[in-house]
Amino acid sequence: MLSSLLKEIRHNPLLWLLVFVPVVFAAETLAPDAPTLLFLLSILAIVPLAALLSHATESVAAKTGDAVGGLLNATLGNLTELVIALAALRAGQYVLVKASIAGAIVANTLFMLGASFLLGGLKHRVQEYSRVGARFQAALLFLATIALLIPSALAEKERASAAVMQTLSLGLAVLLIVTYGLGLLFSLKTHRELFGSAEHAEAGEAPWPLGLALGTLAGVTVLVALVSEIFVESVQEAAEAFGMSPAFVGFIVVALVGGAAEMASAFSGARKNRLDLSVGIALGSAAQIALFVAPVLVLLSYFMGPAPMALDFWPGAVSMMLIATLTATLVTNSGRSAWFVGILLLMVYLIFAMTLYVLPPQVS
Amino acid sequence: MLSSLLKEIRHNPLLWLLVFVPVVFAAETLAPDAPTLLFLLSILAIVPLAALLSHATESVAAKTGDAVGGLLNATLGNLTELVIALAALRAGQYVLVKASIAGAIVANTLFMLGASFLLGGLKHRVQEYSRVGARFQAALLFLATIALLIPSALAEKERASAAVMQTLSLGLAVLLIVTYGLGLLFSLKTHRELFGSAEHAEAGEAPWPLGLALGTLAGVTVLVALVSEIFVESVQEAAEAFGMSPAFVGFIVVALVGGAAEMASAFSGARKNRLDLSVGIALGSAAQIALFVAPVLVLLSYFMGPAPMALDFWPGAVSMMLIATLTATLVTNSGRSAWFVGILLLMVYLIFAMTLYVLPPQVS
Amino acid sequence: MLSSLLKEIRHNPLLWLLVFVPVVFAAETLAPDAPTLLFLLSILAIVPLAALLSHATESVAAKTGDAVGGLLNATLGNLTELVIALAALRAGQYVLVKASIAGAIVANTLFMLGASFLLGGLKHRVQEYSRVGARFQAALLFLATIALLIPSALAEKERASAAVMQTLSLGLAVLLIVTYGLGLLFSLKTHRELFGSAEHAEAGEAPWPLGLALGTLAGVTVLVALVSEIFVESVQEAAEAFGMSPAFVGFIVVALVGGAAEMASAFSGARKNRLDLSVGIALGSAAQIALFVAPVLVLLSYFMGPAPMALDFWPGAVSMMLIATLTATLVTNSGRSAWFVGILLLMVYLIFAMTLYVLPPQVS
Repeated sequence: MLSSLLKEIRHNPLLWLLVFVPVVFAAETLAPDAPTLLFLLSILAIVPLAALLSHATESVAAKTGDAVGGLLNATLGNLTELVIALAALRAGQYVLVKASIAGAIVANTLFMLGASFLLGGLKHRVQEYSRVGARFQAALLFLATIALLIPSALAEKERASAAVMQTLSLGLAVLLIVTYGLGLLFSLKTHRELFGSAEHAEAGEAPWPLGLALGTLAGVTVLVALVSEIFVESVQEAAEAFGMSPAFVGFIVVALVGGAAEMASAFSGARKNRLDLSVGIALGSAAQIALFVAPVLVLLSYFMGPAPMALDFWPGAVSMMLIATLTATLVTNSGRSAWFVGILLLMVYLIFAMTLYVLPPQVS
Repeated sequence: MLSSLLKEIRHNPLLWLLVFVPVVFAAETLAPDAPTLLFLLSILAIVPLAALLSHATESVAAKTGDAVGGLLNATLGNLTELVIALAALRAGQYVLVKASIAGAIVANTLFMLGASFLLGGLKHRVQEYSRVGARFQAALLFLATIALLIPSALAEKERASAAVMQTLSLGLAVLLIVTYGLGLLFSLKTHRELFGSAEHAEAGEAPWPLGLALGTLAGVTVLVALVSEIFVESVQEAAEAFGMSPAFVGFIVVALVGGAAEMASAFSGARKNRLDLSVGIALGSAAQIALFVAPVLVLLSYFMGPAPMALDFWPGAVSMMLIATLTATLVTNSGRSAWFVGILLLMVYLIFAMTLYVLPPQVS
Repeated sequence: MLSSLLKEIRHNPLLWLLVFVPVVFAAETLAPDAPTLLFLLSILAIVPLAALLSHATESVAAKTGDAVGGLLNATLGNLTELVIALAALRAGQYVLVKASIAGAIVANTLFMLGASFLLGGLKHRVQEYSRVGARFQAALLFLATIALLIPSALAEKERASAAVMQTLSLGLAVLLIVTYGLGLLFSLKTHRELFGSAEHAEAGEAPWPLGLALGTLAGVTVLVALVSEIFVESVQEAAEAFGMSPAFVGFIVVALVGGAAEMASAFSGARKNRLDLSVGIALGSAAQIALFVAPVLVLLSYFMGPAPMALDFWPGAVSMMLIATLTATLVTNSGRSAWFVGILLLMVYLIFAMTLYVLPPQVS
């Protein structure tokens, strides 16, 4: 098992960062009062764990056959985001949780897509990808995001009470999870061929044996959970030291850290001129956050959080999510890309980040 | 004439509901103090009348030749919605009127389109329809809705006075009706071949003789008007009994009841794998509400209502209409559908309904 | 040089208006207290100067070769708008400046595009144009406008302080100009063939000799600047006389006057069934306003204005710009047009104008 891991590390330079996993635990014992250090170390430790988690999930999926494997891939694809958000949920840091949901959708549709277009476009002059597939997935993502945002958008205009928002959020969570279940039936069973998930595993990376994969999956999830706890504990003070609001940390930092593994896959696909893969990962992962991660967190808040969590995003987050998914829908519509399209997407992401940094939202 | 009607009833099982027309009049005389009963009976009576109205209009259109027939179809296609709204207008129930306009646009673009995709998709694996036609109609619908919503959207942000909104609404109504007139010139005269309205009449349903059709048109319109009056009188108390706000009744109940006949046509088209027909009915009917029904109601409010009615929708309705038409535009863009696309559209509609039920808008 | 000019005038009837240039200067000396007269005369004088400026820029571009010429065309294409806005900036009329930026984007995407579709459609039944090119340019325009609007949209919801908006505007201006520079690299160097700028010069109009062109460019720019000063001085009182707010003047009048020369080119292209040209001018010019003119004005306000100018548009302008670019994106998506599409775009523009006239924004 160790030799497989070592071979894997040679393949994927990101995994050298695994050395920070023991370092962050050591630091927590030795310097519990250095939140900035713990914050940085925990970020460095989560990135390689996310990459391991991603590879383990794909290995199990490859071994268990199409239906179960697809289910696993679809459910565990955003496991890192989920585990980090659960740690924040347990600590009652709801602003951080909501910001990380909103940030993950925006990061997937603007940063992941933009950087894929840029990296691919620097190597290939004009890249073409399947318009039919991209439009279909973009329509699903758009509808998923709309469904997630309706209550927030309307509540903002009608000034809903907290109790009403809680009722709405619970109803919404149930509807979203039902939709997600039907979506799995659709993408794994009735219309499997529309989604090229079989291509997900890269040619160069052989899947691990089942035992190793399952063991890694379980062990690494525990490690991510432990590191996330350190991360969440240190984030508030560290953010203040860097002049960042909790919303900024959740929206930008957690979203980029949690999605690092998928981004690595998407960027590698773009360099190999397989933009279908990159677009599929970016849009699919964003839709999964909206339809699965967000409602699961609402439901779990009843059991794990100090109080039920409502799905009311602050107004700026609603605008940013709507703009981001609308942009992704319109941009992927042409089925062609070049480096400047990537620059423009990244620029919109940068302007979001700048605005959020300078103008922290007034949320409690 | 009666035998034709009886033959028709055997064809269309919806028409058995015609028995509720005498029942609702009897109930109004016998139990004028049972608003919930009258509300339910009047809904059951309007649905078959709408179906008759729709078939009579098509029969007259088929007999009078293309130009006049097209004009009739285009003008009387939403006659049921118009007659119900007029009854509410006369009673001064402006929230109900505006909610039924907004609800009709949303029901056409989300519910009718979504249920067509779902019903068609359960029978046919992937359905393709003319992208060119759908995009063209979607662009018209989008522009029509935008035109209808600009004053509401801006007034909300600028906090306009009632007098200013009234001036704006009158100007807007004139502009919309001019646009509608030019649109008729376009779709019936100069570019007729872009709109497949000749296909509207189903193969199985032979058109009625002209006399029967005209007589039915006149007689049934009077019946709808009479039943609508009972409906509008009973709706407020009945809605309270069901815990529904007037906005919810107008947005969901009136819109679905008024559009029942067109929905039957759209669904039947989808089952027969003629999605072009379904998409055309859904988008065309929504555009007609925005360009014709809404401004006509504003103009008539000067003569028939207790006071002039402004076209200021409440903020939530503006958001819902914009989201619904944008969604329809993006979803029909791909020219393909499968059952899950229908599920997603219906889910967005369901979330709209849930939000509106839990969070009634603060309108007077 | 004079004979070339006279020959040009015979070609382009707009240039007869050049007679108003000396007239406006005479009027300023003789009747300095007649703002309404000066306002009208200065508009009549700017239109032919803008046409000359446009032809001179193209002539210099044609002589200097592709790279430098493209750069000139791209930078000086909106020179008239820039010079008028600078005059307003120097006078501290920031509402007028911002309204003219917003108005130029809306006028290009709704009025210029709509009138091109209408004028072309009245001559040609259905016009087709390159979907690929239009979609690409529309995506660039959409992203550029989004980037310009994010801070305004978020600040509105979060009620940002003036100091924060100033910081945001400065950062935004720098990011937009960097994006614009990369966009030039893209459209002039790495992906030149995607943009048919070489076709811009019309067949019938021979380019001027370099000396004449450079001289005209310099001389006419000075004239535009001088006339703009009279325009800006007289606008406030004249607007009051016509019952127009400064926002209306900037949004409608300045935008149409400043864009007159480009509109003439776009309309002429549409009549010749070269809609690719018209769509390219309309979308490209709007993107240039967002990425170049707007940030340059912010930066210059630090040196030329009485106080730094922030890029905070009033809420109505944000909505109108978003709707306009979204509409342009969706409408050009089909790659086909007919006269009624033009009518609808013009109608949306007219409703914008009507709303702005009746409901002036509450800005300082």
